[in-house]
Amino acid sequence: MRLADLPTPCLVLDRRKLERNLDAMARAVARNGVALRPHLKTAKSAEIAKLATRGQAGGITVSTLAEAEYFARHGFRDILYAVGIVPAKLDRAGALRRAGVDLTLVTDDVEAAAAIAAHPDDHRVLVEVDCGEHRAGMPVESERLLAVGRALGKRCAGVMTHAGHSYSCKSIAEVAALAEIERQVAVRAAERLHAIGLATQIVSVGSTPTALHARGLAGVTETRPGVYVFQDLFQVQIGSGAIEDMAVTVLTSVTGRRPDENRILVDAGGLALSKDRSTAAAPRDYGFGLVLDVEGYPTLGEAIVERANQEHGIVTAPTPLPLDRLPVGARLRIAPNHVCMTAAMYDRYHVVDGEADAVIAVWDRVNGW
Amino acid sequence: MRLADLPTPCLVLDRRKLERNLDAMARAVARNGVALRPHLKTAKSAEIAKLATRGQAGGITVSTLAEAEYFARHGFRDILYAVGIVPAKLDRAGALRRAGVDLTLVTDDVEAAAAIAAHPDDHRVLVEVDCGEHRAGMPVESERLLAVGRALGKRCAGVMTHAGHSYSCKSIAEVAALAEIERQVAVRAAERLHAIGLATQIVSVGSTPTALHARGLAGVTETRPGVYVFQDLFQVQIGSGAIEDMAVTVLTSVTGRRPDENRILVDAGGLALSKDRSTAAAPRDYGFGLVLDVEGYPTLGEAIVERANQEHGIVTAPTPLPLDRLPVGARLRIAPNHVCMTAAMYDRYHVVDGEADAVIAVWDRVNGW
Repeated sequence: MRLADLPTPCLVLDRRKLERNLDAMARAVARNGVALRPHLKTAKSAEIAKLATRGQAGGITVSTLAEAEYFARHGFRDILYAVGIVPAKLDRAGALRRAGVDLTLVTDDVEAAAAIAAHPDDHRVLVEVDCGEHRAGMPVESERLLAVGRALGKRCAGVMTHAGHSYSCKSIAEVAALAEIERQVAVRAAERLHAIGLATQIVSVGSTPTALHARGLAGVTETRPGVYVFQDLFQVQIGSGAIEDMAVTVLTSVTGRRPDENRILVDAGGLALSKDRSTAAAPRDYGFGLVLDVEGYPTLGEAIVERANQEHGIVTAPTPLPLDRLPVGARLRIAPNHVCMTAAMYDRYHVVDGEADAVIAVWDRVNGW
Repeated sequence: MRLADLPTPCLVLDRRKLERNLDAMARAVARNGVALRPHLKTAKSAEIAKLATRGQAGGITVSTLAEAEYFARHGFRDILYAVGIVPAKLDRAGALRRAGVDLTLVTDDVEAAAAIAAHPDDHRVLVEVDCGEHRAGMPVESERLLAVGRALGKRCAGVMTHAGHSYSCKSIAEVAALAEIERQVAVRAAERLHAIGLATQIVSVGSTPTALHARGLAGVTETRPGVYVFQDLFQVQIGSGAIEDMAVTVLTSVTGRRPDENRILVDAGGLALSKDRSTAAAPRDYGFGLVLDVEGYPTLGEAIVERANQEHGIVTAPTPLPLDRLPVGARLRIAPNHVCMTAAMYDRYHVVDGEADAVIAVWDRVNGW
């Protein structure tokens, strides 16, 4: 099978770039002496999880119970479900534990912690603390932190935090400073819980930017980056990678041309690319994605998907598009703004190796909840 | 099964509201004396397609070949695939024709039209014309319109246009004026093709706003609205329906609380809601969705999903949230900005009847390409 034979739109994964991204993260975690627990919310693929855990401790992170069940079926045994647990989901999580999966949950809520402690399954839980992202987690010096820990009692296994606000950093130095805050908050939370007699063997941090650029992670036991496996336009702009590191693109076909307006239509619209507009807040706004040639190179200048209706992408460029080379049916690739969102619309990856046209493998993905 | 038993996030469809929306559109097309060819890109469900075509001619519209194949398996025989066809997809489309499906394609490209005419399958094609949306389609007075028609020759069956720019109208009167332009453009395009001896038995127009509010459709044979079946926050704001007409919501669970910041976390994030921000350009910006109580009523005031990370939705409100009634695990429903995007993340609808808690049916959906 070749790229030219694939129905469009579809996902293309360049294995060579994937490997390079995995190597870069392996070096970063080795330098900082922490375990890598890759967040598979981005890749959602057993084949990629196997590569991402190669030479590592083997633990993974997931964002849904559907992912936890899928990776358990593929042999993964050490899984952190890193979204605040709801009591109604404890039975489903317990079924995984009873099937031999070492599943770890997280909470930041006293009532949820009490429900976990009262639940018949022997759940293992991290207390979530906020290091400034203002999403989930408690302030590290709050009374509530200790109250949640006490409610968990012997179910407590440590702490976790997530510096998701690293996505709005403007420089590597700023990311490194935030990584240090993330570290300090996690370590301090563990100290506070330890001081009241709770187990805190796990001190978990991580986002792709802070995992790559942390200058030291003393006291931390593991990091949970996710999007580093693929990189995307947003990550490139915040210094997590270079444009040539983006491993996942959407293969698309030209469906129409408007030479008078210097634009083309492609069959990658809002569903194929997602409606994510994270680059709107980045130095360079790529609309709904950067248009690459079929080999994955940015040879079309600054062409972007400016508008995305459900199944129509409208490509514009500040300089003349090479319309002679772009008849209806011509193939292009689109680099996504936020690859976690884009990949979620597909059930498989078509794997290629560098610029070669051959599809060397098809890897499945798990979607939904 | 009851709503309280469903794993969250999931899609809830209120059949009573769906029926009311279907009735409203049936009245609109009857008033204008045209056939209704519902665009199933929104619902992507055979059960809904059966209801939406009840008492109608039976034709449907789709946005992907995967939808065409799915609806063909469910017995639909008159299908318009309303996205510009790419020559590489002609074999797959031809397989449907050979299986007895009366599949109609669209194009606005001379070379694609020539490829269709040369293709061994007896494809049936509408010429796409632009009535001001500036997406696909040719200007109605262009030479290219005739060139595409000539290239199609006996494969030509008429014309289609889409007033997607009705989504930016500010009043019903403005929508009605646009519906008249849409009608005029379609009729004029058909006249021009007819004048050079081509068949133009189909004159197809339509979007939900223009189908509902057209004051007359003389010369038009069919209309193709889609989102009317469900309605959503964006449609409500442009006058296509009322807030109580929104038939599809996302059922979600509270996953965390921050009383000090008057906000809660829910398990409906960017994947569960989509990253669509169409209400950003509407009179009222609902963030990533309006928060309703579990029965589907807007009793939480102006609470919206202000931020949406992959699996985290952050709910804020200008007035105090009733946090006592919203412990971790409490259930809410979120009305989406753009239901076509939101529904695409799910493989099924949980059907309820009005405010009753019982799930009376589970209807599947087709996703992907």
